[in-house]
Amino acid sequence: MADDKKLTTRAEDFSAWYNEVVLRAELADYSPVKGSMVIRPNGYGIWERMQRALDDMFKATGHQNAYFPLFIPESFLHKEAQHVEGFAPECAVVTHGGGKELEEPLIVRPTSETIIYHMYAKWVQSYRDLPILINQWANVVRWEMLTRLFLRTLEFLWQEGHTAHATHDEAEEEALRILGIYRDFAEQWMAMPVITGLKTESERFAGALRTYCIEAMMQDRKALQAGTSHNLGQNFAKAFDLQFQTESGEMAHAWNTSWGVSTRLVGGLVMTHGDDNGLRVPPRLAPIEVVIVPIWKSDDERGRLSEAAEQLRRELTEWTGRGNSDRLRVHVDAREGVKPGAKYYEWELRGVPLRLELGPRDIEKQSVFSARRDTRAKAAIARAGVAESVARILDAIQADMLTEAKARREAATIRSVSSYDEFRDIMAGDGAFVYAGWNGDPEVEARVKEETKATIRVIPDAEFRSTVPPAKCLITGQPARHEVVWAKAY
Amino acid sequence: MADDKKLTTRAEDFSAWYNEVVLRAELADYSPVKGSMVIRPNGYGIWERMQRALDDMFKATGHQNAYFPLFIPESFLHKEAQHVEGFAPECAVVTHGGGKELEEPLIVRPTSETIIYHMYAKWVQSYRDLPILINQWANVVRWEMLTRLFLRTLEFLWQEGHTAHATHDEAEEEALRILGIYRDFAEQWMAMPVITGLKTESERFAGALRTYCIEAMMQDRKALQAGTSHNLGQNFAKAFDLQFQTESGEMAHAWNTSWGVSTRLVGGLVMTHGDDNGLRVPPRLAPIEVVIVPIWKSDDERGRLSEAAEQLRRELTEWTGRGNSDRLRVHVDAREGVKPGAKYYEWELRGVPLRLELGPRDIEKQSVFSARRDTRAKAAIARAGVAESVARILDAIQADMLTEAKARREAATIRSVSSYDEFRDIMAGDGAFVYAGWNGDPEVEARVKEETKATIRVIPDAEFRSTVPPAKCLITGQPARHEVVWAKAY
Repeated sequence: MADDKKLTTRAEDFSAWYNEVVLRAELADYSPVKGSMVIRPNGYGIWERMQRALDDMFKATGHQNAYFPLFIPESFLHKEAQHVEGFAPECAVVTHGGGKELEEPLIVRPTSETIIYHMYAKWVQSYRDLPILINQWANVVRWEMLTRLFLRTLEFLWQEGHTAHATHDEAEEEALRILGIYRDFAEQWMAMPVITGLKTESERFAGALRTYCIEAMMQDRKALQAGTSHNLGQNFAKAFDLQFQTESGEMAHAWNTSWGVSTRLVGGLVMTHGDDNGLRVPPRLAPIEVVIVPIWKSDDERGRLSEAAEQLRRELTEWTGRGNSDRLRVHVDAREGVKPGAKYYEWELRGVPLRLELGPRDIEKQSVFSARRDTRAKAAIARAGVAESVARILDAIQADMLTEAKARREAATIRSVSSYDEFRDIMAGDGAFVYAGWNGDPEVEARVKEETKATIRVIPDAEFRSTVPPAKCLITGQPARHEVVWAKAY
Repeated sequence: MADDKKLTTRAEDFSAWYNEVVLRAELADYSPVKGSMVIRPNGYGIWERMQRALDDMFKATGHQNAYFPLFIPESFLHKEAQHVEGFAPECAVVTHGGGKELEEPLIVRPTSETIIYHMYAKWVQSYRDLPILINQWANVVRWEMLTRLFLRTLEFLWQEGHTAHATHDEAEEEALRILGIYRDFAEQWMAMPVITGLKTESERFAGALRTYCIEAMMQDRKALQAGTSHNLGQNFAKAFDLQFQTESGEMAHAWNTSWGVSTRLVGGLVMTHGDDNGLRVPPRLAPIEVVIVPIWKSDDERGRLSEAAEQLRRELTEWTGRGNSDRLRVHVDAREGVKPGAKYYEWELRGVPLRLELGPRDIEKQSVFSARRDTRAKAAIARAGVAESVARILDAIQADMLTEAKARREAATIRSVSSYDEFRDIMAGDGAFVYAGWNGDPEVEARVKEETKATIRVIPDAEFRSTVPPAKCLITGQPARHEVVWAKAY
């Protein structure tokens, strides 16, 4: 499966470490199309679990899935002025089809606002047709020059929600509801703490009124924008003539939101939790939560130990204490010709949360030997009631991983920078999430980016703000309009 | 929701009826991109249930999901001679990306054999790396001139399985295993009977050794190819240098299979089960299995009846007799300002399998009034134990729909055609599945197609063959090489 060469450590070269983990844990591979990746079963299995969890949350809040075309007429992109400015330079263009040159080139969707709101305009006549709450799971293409596996690829998989509402406030409520879902998902499933809040104008989605986001900190102290939720106002409704008759009989433009997360999250998971032994996957997203390794010393023990491992697997997977549809996901590695140590190495690299070892002595003692992937803590577990013990350990791992990631972020968060010089030193050094006052001027933001590569990641929601918010802009000394979070970012 | 104009009947114009059902049941809509469709939530909900059922079956037989790039270098298509001949004329071509003309044009995948076997060649070294059993859920593009909603669209959604094996026999076994899964799915989930068997050379997948298929009969007596499973032999392994070291140390080319079903199945479902009142969805695939319509005569009854309907919904959805993860899917239609009759009409059009009506008299009598969508049979059900009764009715509907579709196919199957003249009359008239002898000559097949538009749909598996197979070729009078099924097809 994986070669035996030691991984580059995070401290040596975080970026090399990341690529090695992704490739050697077989999450993804490079493809012959520059910038496009292949998502291998180990990586796709994580994405599938992410999809399932998010999809359930979307449906529980009244959303339905649908599917809109991959190709968008080039003219559609031009109907919303900011939108075309943002996306036209990144487009892949189909000029020929069925052996002929097309009359109008087709854009491979970089995002689907234009074609979706065109369809909504056809479907909506009256306020009774609202709200429309639709999501689609799809691939999109953005022509990127500098690509990184999962983090920035020419093609990626995502979900994009698109809603239409009768009022601004309903749209705003929807955008914030989704932001809450994204946050819950990041924290409760990915064990990845995030800061929620608003993007500044320069980082706002092309065509949106307001862009909300969840921002996470990676282990190299850089920020990852992990999900965005946009209140689009009436910009697209006006561009695509999405009107409806109100209850009082007048015509009005609808209010839209759009929101998305992508396979980028898999990269975020690696960079949040991975260690120098490879990947660590939070149990709730792990395609395999538990790997059982039977240990035999001689060939005639092999049959008996494999059978005991299989029995243990059955007991674990048949246990319904977590609910009938949420069984423990268990794999037995009884491969011949591979030493236990080599197996441990492989499953650690792949990030399986819990390893159970089963040797003749364990059977004798009616116990199982366990090794946590997150802390590498080892302990014997009594065979009786093993499923419940395992479930409890997995819960602990899930919780501990979030706590650990949160502590790491807090340790790399600075709220007390007193001068722009100090700020520059931080960004030139290890980096950090720096909370500071900002006068609200986009030119100041641009200058800081130019000089330090740091950007305003988010104007944080109240919960994340300092108890005593800074009165002055760190850069200009003028009165601060917002407290903001600065960081270098992916 | 839907307009009130009566549907065109199937007898009047089957094709017009089909389009009206798809549009008015809001399964799909035309898009501004010629040939591409929008799959609306009602249609996508059915597709999602199809996906879930198939995906579970693939996983239960050891397959994993992955994802390969949308774009394929044009040169890849040319590596397998028959493959490029089959697909090049249907390709959409990306010539520009990121504002620049590309050095090598990219094909939007019409199918992914080329890029997938290129990757497998990279991943496989030894027999220990085999088999590879991977599936992907994806969109593909084939530039079609004559499109029909769901049945033939420029872009469609599908799954494509791609496997690699050490021997011919293993690949053959895999191709047949999948054919069995497709058949089970068609019959047990879609309630759509199919004939399994082999395609003749002229209908074989471009690059395959053998193509197996499931063929279904639509209500207009035309055949629908509903799924295909290909034994690709070593054709692609040779073209993409997919070799492995055997157990005895030699190098050998792998053996591949590929197989797929698509959103076309949703069209097949409509044409198998729809009637002059609209769609009929088999319960197992219905996003909503049961719709409850509370009936009030006066406004002051409304609250009480809606509450009773809600209570009934709760009782049905909380029932776990079908297993914890397979709850009854129930919707309450308590809309104000819409008459019960209009509601019935809408839910019939949409094909919801069972309607429950709840009026003051039903509550008094402690019963619920039920109406089956398939037979339109109506009956009172006792309120006590209602969930179990409903589940039993749904099971009956599922079984009866298959029986009905099977009977319809048998009634339109002819095994006793004595001359080619008679055959021509049949095909010029109502059409049929005609079982007949064939001498195995592709030129005969081509001539019949030319003269009657009928093609050989399948060389049926033993189970479907006549007890006394025909000795002579119906067309030429020469000895028959196979008994085959002729029909006009979608």
